[in-house]
Amino acid sequence: MALRLSTLFLRTLREDPVDAEVDSHKLLLRAGYIRRAAPGIYTWLPLGLRVLRKVEAIVREEMDGIGAQEVHFPALLPKEPYEVTNRWLEYGDGIFRLQDRKGADYLLAPTHEEMFTLLVKDLYSSYKDLPLSIYQIQNKYRDEARPRAGLLRGREFIMKDSYSFDIDDAGLDASYMAHRGAYLRIFARLGLEVIPVAATAGAMGGSRSEEFLHPVAIGEDTFVRSAGGYAANVEAVTTVVPDDIDFSNAPAADVRDTPETPTIDTLVAAANSMVPRDGGEWTAADTLKNVVLAIDLPTGVRQVVVIGVPGDRAVDLKRIEANIGAHLGVGGEVGVEAAGEEDLKKHPGLVKGYIGPGLSLDAPVLGSESSTKLPYLVDPRIVSGTSWITGANEAGKHVFGLVAGRDFSWDGTIEAVEVREGDPAPDGSGPLEAARGIEMGHIFALGRKYSEALDLKVLDQNGKLAVVTMGSYGIGVTRAVAALAESNHDDKGLIWPANVAPANVHVVAVGRGTEIFEAAEQLTAELEAAGLEVIYDDRPKVSPGVKFGDAELLGVPTILAVGRGLVDGVVEIKDRATGVAENVPVADAVKYILDKQ
Amino acid sequence: MALRLSTLFLRTLREDPVDAEVDSHKLLLRAGYIRRAAPGIYTWLPLGLRVLRKVEAIVREEMDGIGAQEVHFPALLPKEPYEVTNRWLEYGDGIFRLQDRKGADYLLAPTHEEMFTLLVKDLYSSYKDLPLSIYQIQNKYRDEARPRAGLLRGREFIMKDSYSFDIDDAGLDASYMAHRGAYLRIFARLGLEVIPVAATAGAMGGSRSEEFLHPVAIGEDTFVRSAGGYAANVEAVTTVVPDDIDFSNAPAADVRDTPETPTIDTLVAAANSMVPRDGGEWTAADTLKNVVLAIDLPTGVRQVVVIGVPGDRAVDLKRIEANIGAHLGVGGEVGVEAAGEEDLKKHPGLVKGYIGPGLSLDAPVLGSESSTKLPYLVDPRIVSGTSWITGANEAGKHVFGLVAGRDFSWDGTIEAVEVREGDPAPDGSGPLEAARGIEMGHIFALGRKYSEALDLKVLDQNGKLAVVTMGSYGIGVTRAVAALAESNHDDKGLIWPANVAPANVHVVAVGRGTEIFEAAEQLTAELEAAGLEVIYDDRPKVSPGVKFGDAELLGVPTILAVGRGLVDGVVEIKDRATGVAENVPVADAVKYILDKQ
Repeated sequence: MALRLSTLFLRTLREDPVDAEVDSHKLLLRAGYIRRAAPGIYTWLPLGLRVLRKVEAIVREEMDGIGAQEVHFPALLPKEPYEVTNRWLEYGDGIFRLQDRKGADYLLAPTHEEMFTLLVKDLYSSYKDLPLSIYQIQNKYRDEARPRAGLLRGREFIMKDSYSFDIDDAGLDASYMAHRGAYLRIFARLGLEVIPVAATAGAMGGSRSEEFLHPVAIGEDTFVRSAGGYAANVEAVTTVVPDDIDFSNAPAADVRDTPETPTIDTLVAAANSMVPRDGGEWTAADTLKNVVLAIDLPTGVRQVVVIGVPGDRAVDLKRIEANIGAHLGVGGEVGVEAAGEEDLKKHPGLVKGYIGPGLSLDAPVLGSESSTKLPYLVDPRIVSGTSWITGANEAGKHVFGLVAGRDFSWDGTIEAVEVREGDPAPDGSGPLEAARGIEMGHIFALGRKYSEALDLKVLDQNGKLAVVTMGSYGIGVTRAVAALAESNHDDKGLIWPANVAPANVHVVAVGRGTEIFEAAEQLTAELEAAGLEVIYDDRPKVSPGVKFGDAELLGVPTILAVGRGLVDGVVEIKDRATGVAENVPVADAVKYILDKQ
Repeated sequence: MALRLSTLFLRTLREDPVDAEVDSHKLLLRAGYIRRAAPGIYTWLPLGLRVLRKVEAIVREEMDGIGAQEVHFPALLPKEPYEVTNRWLEYGDGIFRLQDRKGADYLLAPTHEEMFTLLVKDLYSSYKDLPLSIYQIQNKYRDEARPRAGLLRGREFIMKDSYSFDIDDAGLDASYMAHRGAYLRIFARLGLEVIPVAATAGAMGGSRSEEFLHPVAIGEDTFVRSAGGYAANVEAVTTVVPDDIDFSNAPAADVRDTPETPTIDTLVAAANSMVPRDGGEWTAADTLKNVVLAIDLPTGVRQVVVIGVPGDRAVDLKRIEANIGAHLGVGGEVGVEAAGEEDLKKHPGLVKGYIGPGLSLDAPVLGSESSTKLPYLVDPRIVSGTSWITGANEAGKHVFGLVAGRDFSWDGTIEAVEVREGDPAPDGSGPLEAARGIEMGHIFALGRKYSEALDLKVLDQNGKLAVVTMGSYGIGVTRAVAALAESNHDDKGLIWPANVAPANVHVVAVGRGTEIFEAAEQLTAELEAAGLEVIYDDRPKVSPGVKFGDAELLGVPTILAVGRGLVDGVVEIKDRATGVAENVPVADAVKYILDKQ
């Protein structure tokens, strides 16, 4: 049945809502697709719900297509499984927690790894039951610190999440690739450009992981790509590690008075005035900057760590957040910030502005075996044989020519500094350039993290218990609606791709004559009889300007206007995307539109 | 695509799960339709989800059929609208409350009157926009004290809830009747017998209300009906009020010593031995029992009230709970219990076992204008001119012949006593009989309670602001799945009505020969090509007994067995409901099944 604007539950807005920042948010509100109920929490109005259901249907078909089976979990979940995997703690403030009338703890699920794992454990017991992929399309909840951009980062949102269960790594690889293929088909059908980029697994754990980013300027995710096809999010980029350098002929390290040089800039200036360098000037890249960070662990412990990086590179706290857990032996989300006065007070061995790893391997100042006992991690560019100007652990003194591997060592390397445009792609495919995108989907080869924690084992071919290996795969369904709106609009309104538009044709009756409304009504009926979905603007006393404005705002692909041309036997058919309009004889209108589908 | 049991995510159970009490719960668990995730919270497995989606689709079609428009609200809602209507308090322990990271209060919606009202207020402003009916099919949350019977009383469940908005009472009546009609069609299509019974509005407020009860022995709701077609839930039954009696010739009241007669039984025995009655014996029906109750109001106040009822009737606390709010001027759920010693201590004017309304209108002991100031409500049978034996407010004394309206008065009447089988139906349609049922739907003519509280007004025909009048209409969607299972099973398993079955045909390959599996595969393909949904038991090494057992347990309407008969060119086609099986030539099998649809 056609949606008639005389009765459709809709009110379009002329003005941009004050609290909407990005175009998709403004337009979805203005065109009456969604309405805000609370920060990051939205109500779907009839037109929005139609788009949402079409996106869901495409996702469902492609998931069914790879043999995944649909189930549906509760959103309200008991704490216990999330305690076993430690995510109850690891999520920190990021999830909604509550208690029932008996005081039992619950959460609103942010994602369902634990429940799926337990369900499979409950039902299955043999390798013959595998492989298995199951999924749901369901409400998710995250207590975002800053919900923003409408549906792009909400607190209640719909995700498709699926999980694969395999007996071995080869099986997981096949399941992962099947999902990867389904995701590419889903986004292609949605008309949504995505770039699969290598990602870190973060709090999810696991080995391999890719994000599907929709490249758009307002995207929250920064990623880098090379002309040669490399793409990764910034957290996941790996540094091209230089070869070790033979240090057998390197001069001995040399401590110098460098008064009042607590910063890299002052140090470089002092070095150039004090110790002229053969064949050029000292630059920040010659210095080793030792940054003291405080890491808030999910356990509540605050751990101080020192990270050594070339002085010309800024540390990137998000990259450190993504990578440091492995070094400290903790899972979950950690908080990373510069150590404060309170933190430094507890470590009097650190001389602010003049911190260094120590002058010899026998007397280390940084590192877990050193006098300070502070873990010392370094950027991967600091390889054996590289020579540095760095702090001598005395106020006003630096050491020149301190050689890595000869004079100092470290506990491990970490990707800790910002990735720059022009840095080489790790796969040799050329220099990196930066881009922004919205994360539309994310696939994880989880491995055995959850199955081990929750003891999901099956009998293998030899009758022995084997831990199942898992994958986890998500698509932001409500977010996809927003991303589609973000990338498909102009200054007049939305321009939906055909596969997800709330209707195929928007029929507008323009004018006051009865014959106009009769003809529009008749064409609406014929279009519907031909299998098309129609919005019919049958409002009797609304001006042509308002009607056309609403049609452009709502964004249905084809606008059919019945108006003054009717006396000459023609109607106007306009392509919303191109703006091209054509007068078509009334009798040919339906066929003309069908041919365009 | 056929559901193949070799890969379907399913495990059937031979034994009844220990924590399942009712048949539907046992069978839905055993047949692998649902799985418990927490008390009153369930996961839907693939077969269950198919049934659920079919129920939803029927509900959706009929709602669309009356012009209702689908929207979708969040489940996580801010407190504020529920504070305005006072339901934040009134729901007491019955809802889930939580706070976000900023300490703002939220609830998981038990029902959405407030949000729908605010949405319409947000979008609409004129009588021309009305009538409007909007609905959603959505998760609801209630923190039940005793979740039980599986999906029948859960804590996370799916409801269809709709809301109508009209400019006047005639409009509300039309919207109410449209929903009533849609509900009857929905339940008819589901194959679920329902009886619409008059109900009280309870915490919802409003004027007219009906429940749609599915009559079944395990139902939690007691209702009464007459052979003449009256049906009401017990809370809503109204007493047939006797006519007033002329008391001008009634003898004066007479106080007697009745030592040690604190109960109705001892009082009746004493009365018969002491004051022989003309033409018969005194019975409990001649006594006026004054019951002292303590009412816990949503505000936290505990209010003592006295209710006078004929001595032969027990008070029904649930009926009092449903009706007393109006007398005390409070909305929301109240708690009612017999007053305890602590309550009585505060009212020394009450002489336990000998409480009465007082001996004359000049010296009342009960009532808001009396010496005790306690509100005094009476059963509707206590009409002017009726004469009673009741307490004289002195230990060991009762008064005989105390005449209502002459000697004592009251603050109001209340439906306070149990309804008995044999009581007359209020509409004169005959004596009442008791029955039990499950509440499948509930419709409320809310009136202006929510629109007034939330200030939903539109301009009327005269350009004046008018408060919109509303209706609210619910159907338990997940509960319908359970009710269907409850009323459609035998000792072997489920027997789904065709409209909601997870498939039309369950094909079973019985035996080991390749030709059997090939024929079964071929029939499966042909049935699907003919538009039927098929479950195909293609498991290669499972015994015929297990396969037939599973087929009976799963409950698909038609079971097609391909087995030994194949050498003679026949397959067995069995009707799950009747158990009737027939051998049919292979070539005719598809047509035979199609003819039965």
